[in-house]
Amino acid sequence: MSSLLRVGIIGLGTVGSGVAHLLLNESARLQRRAGRPIELRAVAVRDAAKPRGVQLQKNVLLTENANELATHPEVDVVVELMGGVEPARQYVLEALKHGKDVVTANKALLCEAGDELFQTARKHGRSIGFEAAVAGGCPIIQILGQAMSANQVTSMQAIINGTSNFILTEMFNRGLPYAAALAEAQRMGYAEADPSMDVDGTDAAQKLSLLVKLAFGTAVSPEDFPVQGIDTIELADLKYADELGYAVKLLATAKLIDGQLEVHTQATLVRHDRPLAQVDGPYNMIALTGDVVGKAVFSAMGAGEQATASAVMADIVDVAVGRAGLTFRALDLFGDSEPLPLQPQEKIYRRYYLRFNVLDRPHVIADITDVLGRKGISLASVIQHEVPEVEETSATENSVVPLVIMTHRTTEGQIRQAAAELDRIAALRPPSVYMPVSG
Amino acid sequence: MSSLLRVGIIGLGTVGSGVAHLLLNESARLQRRAGRPIELRAVAVRDAAKPRGVQLQKNVLLTENANELATHPEVDVVVELMGGVEPARQYVLEALKHGKDVVTANKALLCEAGDELFQTARKHGRSIGFEAAVAGGCPIIQILGQAMSANQVTSMQAIINGTSNFILTEMFNRGLPYAAALAEAQRMGYAEADPSMDVDGTDAAQKLSLLVKLAFGTAVSPEDFPVQGIDTIELADLKYADELGYAVKLLATAKLIDGQLEVHTQATLVRHDRPLAQVDGPYNMIALTGDVVGKAVFSAMGAGEQATASAVMADIVDVAVGRAGLTFRALDLFGDSEPLPLQPQEKIYRRYYLRFNVLDRPHVIADITDVLGRKGISLASVIQHEVPEVEETSATENSVVPLVIMTHRTTEGQIRQAAAELDRIAALRPPSVYMPVSG
Repeated sequence: MSSLLRVGIIGLGTVGSGVAHLLLNESARLQRRAGRPIELRAVAVRDAAKPRGVQLQKNVLLTENANELATHPEVDVVVELMGGVEPARQYVLEALKHGKDVVTANKALLCEAGDELFQTARKHGRSIGFEAAVAGGCPIIQILGQAMSANQVTSMQAIINGTSNFILTEMFNRGLPYAAALAEAQRMGYAEADPSMDVDGTDAAQKLSLLVKLAFGTAVSPEDFPVQGIDTIELADLKYADELGYAVKLLATAKLIDGQLEVHTQATLVRHDRPLAQVDGPYNMIALTGDVVGKAVFSAMGAGEQATASAVMADIVDVAVGRAGLTFRALDLFGDSEPLPLQPQEKIYRRYYLRFNVLDRPHVIADITDVLGRKGISLASVIQHEVPEVEETSATENSVVPLVIMTHRTTEGQIRQAAAELDRIAALRPPSVYMPVSG
Repeated sequence: MSSLLRVGIIGLGTVGSGVAHLLLNESARLQRRAGRPIELRAVAVRDAAKPRGVQLQKNVLLTENANELATHPEVDVVVELMGGVEPARQYVLEALKHGKDVVTANKALLCEAGDELFQTARKHGRSIGFEAAVAGGCPIIQILGQAMSANQVTSMQAIINGTSNFILTEMFNRGLPYAAALAEAQRMGYAEADPSMDVDGTDAAQKLSLLVKLAFGTAVSPEDFPVQGIDTIELADLKYADELGYAVKLLATAKLIDGQLEVHTQATLVRHDRPLAQVDGPYNMIALTGDVVGKAVFSAMGAGEQATASAVMADIVDVAVGRAGLTFRALDLFGDSEPLPLQPQEKIYRRYYLRFNVLDRPHVIADITDVLGRKGISLASVIQHEVPEVEETSATENSVVPLVIMTHRTTEGQIRQAAAELDRIAALRPPSVYMPVSG
């Protein structure tokens, strides 16, 4: 067990550089924790000539050919940090077939091709570590796979997109419009140049799919459940929510209800006194309920180089210790346990926050509440703040005012039907906002 | 790896019953998670005739001879849940020497005899799992030993005595005096008949010693650092703290400061907006900072049968999977890493909350602040609420009023010197309260 473990990294972006930095500068610490030396042996990058923050030693192979790294006889663990589905999938498959363990932070890859990759790993007696794929510094994969082993998870609510949470926090705390908060997130390195996967909910939904597979042994795909991001949320919504006693969070939820799984990833109103409402900035939080342990809450940085590098490094040490293979084989993941049926989307039952931009004309509120009433949606509260009176009739007639409605519990189906009908009201100026309230 | 794992439990109190219940009633789930069947084979209790909540099957050996269980050839894992140092220590040693892995929830035992037990386990190639010894349902041992493996922990603040936290919460939320809140904790099963180890800080200090050993590779004993419980805290202190913007928590703290370890377990004022201030009832929380991952927070039930049983069961599954041995060997625990020097107690530097019961006489405040001033302790704020005027002079002269002082940062040494001198002021009615403020 004192033999050298040789690591190859595909992709030297922020996370890859962080991992390389740890391997090069903290080798004594890592050796003590792993019981054997761990060495950076190879790095594959797109452009080997590009200057980079990490100073690679001469014995580290630097290649533009990721396949060379994935199949290299002197690499024991392949760390895939290039992102995206292809060609990452090919490199991971090659690495596994060549007898290497794999560590990855790539949730899109696992969400898309997890089945194939896990089966290939099993077939070749190797492991795939993916702690870094979900929730950055929060070791949720390890917690679900080990600490919760006596439990059936019954509910899971999570903030697992640090970028979105940072944007929502900036908007509310600094009174910024969405676009300015997004720009700030990009400046801070929390959002990528193309942030769409983060802000439209896709990233959080992919992570949730992985967590659902682990916690409930059920394969779900983001296409199967409601996914709405934060990109339609306005500062006004955060202020109204606050006035009503809630924070707005991009919440990934999976609950066991009467033998069915309720799953969704949506911008959601969360009551101020709940721990999830208090997660600010680029942090992640996962609130779990297990049937034995009860409620548990885990929180850590969810975006940024360091937290993710810490998770990747923990997975590498797990390989070095020999734990990765055991955990991977025992993991009830991508396996054959009885899958649970998904609750039909239209049956999801909860309260909703609705915001409409209405032309300031007579009878508009009556029109809206009439539609809601006919769909069986009853109202808990209505907010329409007074607008300053304007002298000229034309100005008033065209001025748009927000109307905010909190409903009692209703179904997603009723809300969707109502939304379709409300779209036809001429005095409404889209987009209207429909946000669920966490129960 | 599909062979049966046979479990023996010493002690069938609340936690032992919870573990037995899981083994007997969730065997399918446990087998799926462990990849092999896990069976309850033997139970050792003090009085075999006593009726108990768990229905043991005929094939389970029920004995009053714990040594028989610890050495039984048909037991693979000995789960020690009897508590106390002796004779638990003997049974654990016997079990290890007879080639059995051990799982224990006994922090007093590990704190007292951990060195000997861990060395014995190493010598015989066995493992000791002790997730349940600290923080109940919060898998902090696993997190420190695995998820944090790339990190040097730099600070740790923890609420790790569920009983104390429940009592403090009951006092504040329901306006109960200490004794009534303690009685409620006993009624709810969160406090034992003799609660002294919980409320005087010993239990939290023992757990902190274990965490310090794991996180900093340094052996500290509760005798080496300040330990103060909640048993001298009055409802009035919680109210004054709240007025000042703080909650009172029994906080176990270990921080790396200039190469020294600052360690203490004390009732402490924690600012309302900190996650630790918001932990209510029998919950635990551990807030960590790692030099790579940054801040992370973990919270779960810390008292009660179920959360601890969940942690014990996770350790048993770890043995079944084969992970326990690997983790135990890799763990930088009770090992040979360079220990860190402890910061001298008198050098600990922070703000303090002081409450004095003073006779309502002229010049008392001047006497107190004079002592503090001469010791170099400067005051941030003073609260003395007006007391209703009483007609008779004698009544006023003897009435006792609270005086609350918040200091600026000062040292524990200066506070102790001041306290010794203040004790000699005739107009003070002890006990005075000296509580640190979390930085």
